[in-house]
Parts: sequence; structure tokens; C-alpha cells
Amino acid sequence: MELKPSPFAPTDYPDMDALDGFRLGVAGTGVKYKARNDVLVVSMPEGASVAGVFTKSKCPSAPVDWCKGHLAQGRARALIVNASNANAFTGAAGVQTVTTVAQAAADKVGGKPEEVFLASTGVIGEPLDPAPIVNCFGALFDEGKQDASWMDAARTIMTTDTFPKMATASVDIDRVEVSIYGIAKGSGMIAPDMATMLGFVFTDAVIAPDVLQALLSKHVETSFNAITVDSDTSTSDTLMLFASGAAAKRGCPAIEDADDNRLVAFSAALSALLEDLAKMVVRDGEGASKFLEITVTGAQSDGAAKRVALSIANSPLVKTAAAGEDANWGRVVMAVGKAGEMADRDKLTIWFGPHRLASNGVRDPNYSEEAASGYMKQDELEIRVDLDMGEGQATVWTCDLTHGYISINGDYRS
Amino acid sequence: MELKPSPFAPTDYPDMDALDGFRLGVAGTGVKYKARNDVLVVSMPEGASVAGVFTKSKCPSAPVDWCKGHLAQGRARALIVNASNANAFTGAAGVQTVTTVAQAAADKVGGKPEEVFLASTGVIGEPLDPAPIVNCFGALFDEGKQDASWMDAARTIMTTDTFPKMATASVDIDRVEVSIYGIAKGSGMIAPDMATMLGFVFTDAVIAPDVLQALLSKHVETSFNAITVDSDTSTSDTLMLFASGAAAKRGCPAIEDADDNRLVAFSAALSALLEDLAKMVVRDGEGASKFLEITVTGAQSDGAAKRVALSIANSPLVKTAAAGEDANWGRVVMAVGKAGEMADRDKLTIWFGPHRLASNGVRDPNYSEEAASGYMKQDELEIRVDLDMGEGQATVWTCDLTHGYISINGDYRS
Repeated sequence: MELKPSPFAPTDYPDMDALDGFRLGVAGTGVKYKARNDVLVVSMPEGASVAGVFTKSKCPSAPVDWCKGHLAQGRARALIVNASNANAFTGAAGVQTVTTVAQAAADKVGGKPEEVFLASTGVIGEPLDPAPIVNCFGALFDEGKQDASWMDAARTIMTTDTFPKMATASVDIDRVEVSIYGIAKGSGMIAPDMATMLGFVFTDAVIAPDVLQALLSKHVETSFNAITVDSDTSTSDTLMLFASGAAAKRGCPAIEDADDNRLVAFSAALSALLEDLAKMVVRDGEGASKFLEITVTGAQSDGAAKRVALSIANSPLVKTAAAGEDANWGRVVMAVGKAGEMADRDKLTIWFGPHRLASNGVRDPNYSEEAASGYMKQDELEIRVDLDMGEGQATVWTCDLTHGYISINGDYRS
Repeated sequence: MELKPSPFAPTDYPDMDALDGFRLGVAGTGVKYKARNDVLVVSMPEGASVAGVFTKSKCPSAPVDWCKGHLAQGRARALIVNASNANAFTGAAGVQTVTTVAQAAADKVGGKPEEVFLASTGVIGEPLDPAPIVNCFGALFDEGKQDASWMDAARTIMTTDTFPKMATASVDIDRVEVSIYGIAKGSGMIAPDMATMLGFVFTDAVIAPDVLQALLSKHVETSFNAITVDSDTSTSDTLMLFASGAAAKRGCPAIEDADDNRLVAFSAALSALLEDLAKMVVRDGEGASKFLEITVTGAQSDGAAKRVALSIANSPLVKTAAAGEDANWGRVVMAVGKAGEMADRDKLTIWFGPHRLASNGVRDPNYSEEAASGYMKQDELEIRVDLDMGEGQATVWTCDLTHGYISINGDYRS
């Protein structure tokens, strides 16, 4: 189906020229798409570090199993992404496919197959033939056709994304400037058999794998693990962080300790970049007409705050109210109540933007339907709930639930 | 908004004439609805038993708090239901309202206020004035206008329900025939501030309160606690069971022990009646065009099976696929994977009706897109998943997610 661009599509994109140590190649297998690229190859120098976080699904895709299985050795020579088939629920054949692709890529870049990381997005349950992907390697590697731009890379991994997702940051480590580049795709569905989110972040800094992993595991909680479009967790969700170490030749020190003070600025920049990419996924959420930031404070713990925030963010009634521009705070009460975390109705305070709509267990004495309804006409909405139970707090991001979502996922016959 | 009847509305209704010991009265306050009744009064004889189960919401309505608080004494003289305002998130005023209504009803029927049970459905967060309800009592009680039919009662508690929900059963206790009558409302929304399910079951049997409670608590798990329309738990969900004991004069023995063998047939009939009523709520689910029965077998426990089944039943992607008549078993894999219960992708088997679509971690070798798609055109669908992990199993019921749901809950400006 033809999708119109999200109203939240960016009007311009960041300048992201070559990143020291990484070479990009894109190609089209022609298997599913005729007129676009669907294979991304990122090669990196020997000794590059890698970290990753993956779907918690009990039915993960074959590439997810592969990446998890080889993350511990911490080194990467290549990343291969295909956007035509998720290679999920494909059994032994799926495992054979990732092994074949990884071996073929390793033969080209040099290095071991376990230093090749893979991600696939597309149909669940259909066998993925490795040949069309491997056949792209000849041109990409032998003929040195690894001259693609980061925009090319971001576009190549899209499914029903209506815009490419890119973010960049520059930061000093011990007075040497390093860069962080990130691309992501999701939460699109090119056909309703698909559900996946992919994010890849790259830096030329010199950072040990365990340090990279510590940074990624920490910051994913407040970025990609703090967004939801429809509460449905993919079999293929993958977020990986690669460090080429190429900045060493410019005098950048190698960081071996996650607590190294020289990493403070880098960590902050990475956190901001991940949050930025994650929000882009929500802004491109299927059928999205509103972007919602939901903050819960005063919970018994940060974890409790996040569970309450996600209960609100995943509530179909809250999301349809947002779509209808209805300041329906009663549905927020409902969602807090069903979250299962400690809450006391009579201590609850609810704000929509600057408007306090409910407090002390009743509608706010100064409640104004006009003011609240006026606020709901904005494209970007902030809902804040204070539980007055403790110090725990969390912020999550989501979009509304519209006819567009139903059309994308239900209006067809297979 | 004007709602068209659910495609699953029954074509005829059970005969339910007077039930020994219960008198029904209906009236209209005129507060919200001009042309219909919105107050139901059920009076019952001294010594009638009561049992109840209520929403687990941390933000329950004032009537729910009232009923929970007075359930322990086990006796009921009256049930008062209003369908115009949920009296939820109304603070001290809401508590005053239930106290006033209960006292006024107790004065009329004789008995203590705590023997009067209350339920309200409607807007959340707006004060509920007790006066219009209490003003109905004069006619209903003094002038003996308690001659309403069970159909009247079922209609009076409706909100956006498109059909009244009634069920009946007759069963012998120690060779004396007793009856079980049930009515329910939901999952409608007369305005999107509302979200509630109410169910009331009545019998003329002679059953002690703790026995009634044991029966209700057991059977609610496989009936009302096994349905979902949109995963949003109401602040007001209420299911109550009343026993008038009037069958005693026909020689029906008093049942004081939940394990009494003379209760076996009654328990089975009650279970079937509750399941029947619960399914009616799903069949009248907002925007429903498909009725889905989801069965999970082979889980580590019945609880685990139910959590997996509800993960499937609440998945927007599974529900939109049903709406689209797409045999999208990949989304079922996704929903099993995200449920968090023990599952092994490679042991999973998935059936849509008689069609086995996936087994042993791959698409079924005999998979036929035509056959599967043909099956999806039915109004009533069965999805079965076997996890091959243990003996646990559960069945839940839901409906699809359609444009109708979005229209009912999002297509308006408040």
C-alpha cells in the first residue's frame, strides 16, 4: 500500500559524511523490491568493538540468535542488514542462512564469521535464501563499491518507514574529537507480516567491548526501551553499537573502563543520540497523528514509574482519545489503575501539558474543558502523572491510535 | 453517536419470567438520558446471600469500594444500579453519594445500608448527585412499582451495548429445581469517558454467602476473567451473585459447604451461564466484526497458558489481522514470543481452526494460503497454540480491532 509521509517527518537531515573506520555499501537483491536497495554492508577495521541489545522475545529471529551468540568475543569486522525477510520462525534453514551469509562476508572482509553481525527485517515465517544477498558481496567488496552515504544506508534498511532515521553527535574524549553516527528503522510494516525495529550506532572512538556494552545497556532503557507504538514486541528488535577505534591515530586514548571520567561527555552524547533515534521511530509510528510524551513521577521506584507510564502509553483508549483530541483524563486514571503498581486514587495528580486536570482524587477545581480541549489540538502532547508514593520516575514516548493504524494492518486480504 | 447493532446480536432471548424472591424495578432519572430508564432496583428477602468479584484497578469507583467493604457480612436486601455516571474518581463526594443512596434504599426495603449493594456505569470523574436516584425510590418501593421484567433490567443497565445480555439456567439441588438468572452489560461506551463491565447473577437457591463466593471466585476465572476487548481494565468492573433462598419453601436444602455434592450440577450450570454472559460482552465488543476463541495448550501451568492466550488476544496486530481476514500466524508467533512465558520457538504449533499453519519452528509443510485465508472469512475464528512445554492450558475470548473501535473511541471532539 502507498503510505503518506508522517506529519512528523523531519524537514532536513544532519550532515553525516564519512566516519573514520567504517565503509558502507548498499545493493538490491531484487527478490522483493525491484526499484530499491535492500542490503546494507558496513565493514570495519580489525579490532573494532561491538555491543548489542536484542529483543526479549521467546521466539527471536535467526539473526538475533546469531548476534547474541557471538557478542561475547566483542569484535566486529562487518554488519550485514537485509530488508526483505525477517528470517524469523524459519527453523534450521534460517540458521543455515545466517551461517552462510556470515561466512561469505568473513571471506571478503577477512576475519572470522563470528565477527560478522547480521540483522534482517521483513516477513516472518518465510525461508530466506542467502544466495541473493551473498551475490551482492562480489561487487560491494571486490570492486570496492563501498561508497554509499549514511543516507543511503538509512534508506536501505527501511520497510514502511516513511522517512530515514539518522542522528549524529561529536564529542571530545581527552581533547580528541570523536563522532557518533546512528541510523534506525521502524515501526513500519511493509506487509502486515512484519514487525521490527533496527538501530545501529557507530563511533570512531577507541572503546573496549565491555565498556561499549555497559554504555549501550544503560542508555537503551531511557531510549529504545522507553518507546511503544502498539505494544507488540518484534521477533527481530536489534540495537548495536560499533567502535572502529580509528580515532586512535589522532591520539584518542583507548577507554577500557566504563567509569573512566574521560567518557562522561561521550556517554551523555550517546544517550541523547539514542533518545533522538528512538523518538524518530515513534514519530513514524503507523498512522501517527500525535506524538505523546508520558511522564510518571512519585512512583515507588523508577521501574514502577515506567510500568505505569507504559500502561498509559499502551492503552488503546488513551491513544484513541489523543487521536480524537479529547482531554480524556478519566482514561489516564483507568490506565494508572490497571498498571498493577502501587497507586492511591486520592493522591493522584494528572496534567495535560500545563493544565492540571485532576488532583487529590477528584477533578481539579480549576478544570477548564475549553483549555484542556484546546491543548489537545497540538501535534505533540505531554501527559504527566504524579503518584505521590515515592521518588520513582520515568518518561516514555508513544503515538496515537488512528484509522491509519487499522488501515495499514487490517485493510487488505492476503 | 448512533451505533449499529453488533453482527453477533442474538436473534432471540431466553424466557425469563419472575425469579422467586427477587423483585425488579426500573426508572429514569432524566439526568443524562431523556427517553430511557437508567436506574435498576432489585430487592430481595431478608437473609438473601451475596457474593462478588470486582475490578483489580488501583483506582476503583466509589460503588466498588462500598461493595467490597460490605461483602464480608454476606447478606443483601437490595441492588441499585445506575447507568449514567460511574461515580469513579469523585473523592469524598462520591463516597457520600453511595452512603446516601444505600441509606435511602435500606430505609425503603428494611435492613441495614451495608446490605444494599451498588454499581454505577458512566462518565469517570464527574460528581454523581444521589438525589435523582433516591427520588426514584418513592415510586419504585412505596407504590410497589417493582414489576419490571428481566429484559427491562438488562436494558436499563446498558451503555453503548447494542443488545441486552441475559442468560438463564435451571438445575436441581437435591431433586428441587432452582433457577439461575444472569444479566450483564459492556463493553460499550456511551461516551469515551466510560469503560465498565457489570454482571449480576441471581438464584432462588439456598446457599450460604461463603459458598456463593467460592463458586463465583472459581468460575469468574474461566468466564469474565477470560475475555478482553481492548486490554483496558475498567475502574468499575463488578460481578455479583445473589441467592434469595426462596426455594427453601419448596424443600430446597440450604447449602453450607462448597464441597457439598448436591451443588455439583449448580456449579456446572453457573459456570456455563457466566461463560455465556462473558462471551456476549465480547460479541458486543466495540466495532467487533469477528469473534475469536484463543486456546493455548502445553504451557508450564494454566496461569502461563492464560497469559500467553491474553498476549495473543490483546495484540493489536493479531486483532487487525483478524479484521483483515489475513491468516497472519506470524503475528501469533510474535505475541507468543512477547508474552514472557516459557516458550520454545522450535516446539510451537499453531492452528487456525482445522488448519495447522506452523509446527516445529517452521511454516507447516502442508501450509495452504488459500485454505487459511478461506477460513479467516468466517465470523467466528478459533486460534490454537500448543507450546509443548507442559500440561497447562487456557481459553480466552476476544474480538477483532476495526475502524469501528477507532470511530467509537476517537472520532469526536469533546
